[in-house]
Amino acid sequence: MIYSVIMRAIVFDGKTEYRADYPKPVPSEGEALIKVSLAGICATDLEITRGYMGFKGVLGHEFVGVIEETADDRFHGKRVVGEINIPCGGCEFCKAKMPTHCPARSVLGIHNKDGAFADYLTLPLRNLHPIADDLSDEAAVFTEPLAAAFEIFEQVPIDEDTKVAVLGDGRLGILVSEVMNLAGCNSITIGRHAEKLEILKKMNIPARLGKDGLGRVFDVVVDCTGSPAGFDDALSLVKPRGTVVLKTTVAERGGVDLNRVVIDEIIVVGSRCGPFRPALKALDERKVRVKPLITKVFPIEEGVQAIEYAKEKGVLKVLIKMD
Amino acid sequence: MIYSVIMRAIVFDGKTEYRADYPKPVPSEGEALIKVSLAGICATDLEITRGYMGFKGVLGHEFVGVIEETADDRFHGKRVVGEINIPCGGCEFCKAKMPTHCPARSVLGIHNKDGAFADYLTLPLRNLHPIADDLSDEAAVFTEPLAAAFEIFEQVPIDEDTKVAVLGDGRLGILVSEVMNLAGCNSITIGRHAEKLEILKKMNIPARLGKDGLGRVFDVVVDCTGSPAGFDDALSLVKPRGTVVLKTTVAERGGVDLNRVVIDEIIVVGSRCGPFRPALKALDERKVRVKPLITKVFPIEEGVQAIEYAKEKGVLKVLIKMD
Repeated sequence: MIYSVIMRAIVFDGKTEYRADYPKPVPSEGEALIKVSLAGICATDLEITRGYMGFKGVLGHEFVGVIEETADDRFHGKRVVGEINIPCGGCEFCKAKMPTHCPARSVLGIHNKDGAFADYLTLPLRNLHPIADDLSDEAAVFTEPLAAAFEIFEQVPIDEDTKVAVLGDGRLGILVSEVMNLAGCNSITIGRHAEKLEILKKMNIPARLGKDGLGRVFDVVVDCTGSPAGFDDALSLVKPRGTVVLKTTVAERGGVDLNRVVIDEIIVVGSRCGPFRPALKALDERKVRVKPLITKVFPIEEGVQAIEYAKEKGVLKVLIKMD
Repeated sequence: MIYSVIMRAIVFDGKTEYRADYPKPVPSEGEALIKVSLAGICATDLEITRGYMGFKGVLGHEFVGVIEETADDRFHGKRVVGEINIPCGGCEFCKAKMPTHCPARSVLGIHNKDGAFADYLTLPLRNLHPIADDLSDEAAVFTEPLAAAFEIFEQVPIDEDTKVAVLGDGRLGILVSEVMNLAGCNSITIGRHAEKLEILKKMNIPARLGKDGLGRVFDVVVDCTGSPAGFDDALSLVKPRGTVVLKTTVAERGGVDLNRVVIDEIIVVGSRCGPFRPALKALDERKVRVKPLITKVFPIEEGVQAIEYAKEKGVLKVLIKMD
């Protein structure tokens, strides 16, 4: 058998390029080699192509694939999704079970680790979650962003009496809205695009265009806008002593009104990567619908165009297919 | 007996003025008339004189005085301190025991209510707390800012294992440091003025000049700097998933790095007015020392100069005396 030592990949190195001759990664100890089937483009990928994080290498961190090599034979050939933070394992944060905050961590396709827009990637075996045979690649590829939505429940007390506003009708906004709806809380999604809000309305999830006429009546506002204006909008909707959850990073530093936070004793909670288990469970049990979010699938050879397309208005999830 | 209907007051109306002929306030139903003995100048007063809050009227909200008129005879002649928020009593926030967040509230010397830099003020009787005979005016006048320091314990879980940094060695920074020390937590105050930090060191409270060499090691960072740079400094000291408490409003809107909040899942908590009871208890039991904070006392006729003096570098608490 002849192993190829090069592969196809979408690489950022100041500019974004398709490469047919990128070195195939070699798994380190404890890592598995994964043949990627399908990958998703996330807002963070778009920001990286604008220079955010100073990352260079293979882009992408949302994926589904098949384990090709691993020290543990039981996992050979398994379809998997994977957690993206690779912690050192020995520091204070790793010991405190906060591996996603290990200061020495690398992050798939984001920091010091080649990512998922390629034929192959490597990740520690402990990062991987086997998925059910009847869960499609197109659904499973949403596990990572859906886990990020579930992270909110790890951080903020939310129950069916909690009045929640989700700001933003993009990819993450819709996933967060679905997860809030799943939790049975009293939530509404406030967006700017009728056609995207329609996706939620078809699932019987309350959604509306714009915030006009809404007062400061929400216990929790989740900012998924990815826009510097999102924080101000959130402050205009949250009750005094309420909570604003920040789910998205923003390329520019905004002129933020922290006085409002002080005077109204608002709690602002940053929220990032989340738990895979509840996300996979919701997908397995068909409790969330993710396929309506797929706008287009590109072959990896057209990965650069896929990323450009993902930046266009009105586009939701763009996938890159390796097979 | 002839009642005078005018009084001395320090009034802001676009500029700050001493007035000898300001109308003496008439208590509304449920209010007491208080003869003010001593009042303290707070950073908020200084910001109001720069146009913050758009307030016009008698300045000042930190005071100690004597009840001269009230419907309840038992309180006549009592020395009191007073809570500064005057809620409507009927709204959702009042019913939820959050009177300091009543949207229809007025606030003594800050919003729609003449303040304490005057011979007389009026406040609802329920806002007033009688003080012990042996508690001096000079100590009691610190009740309101000390209560603001105690508010932190109402909002953030802090125990003796909590590693706390207090940023700022001004009036509020020192009070917060004393309260953290009283709670027995592992705290250090980071300031910029050796002579102010000396006050803390004399009380055996850990304090240091500048943050150089400190890493991101604090569970809780309390920003009492009143400076736009305070928030960035706090983010550079707080652990991932740690808490930044914002105690001070800032006149300018800063270019704030909310991405750091998202990536490190920081919790930012705005913190304002606090509970009077623990503050009075700490003062009564001589568990905090406040008199070292008094830089100078001015007679009310020199109130305008007192406010100018309070803006000078190196000055801590400036008091205005009516008697």
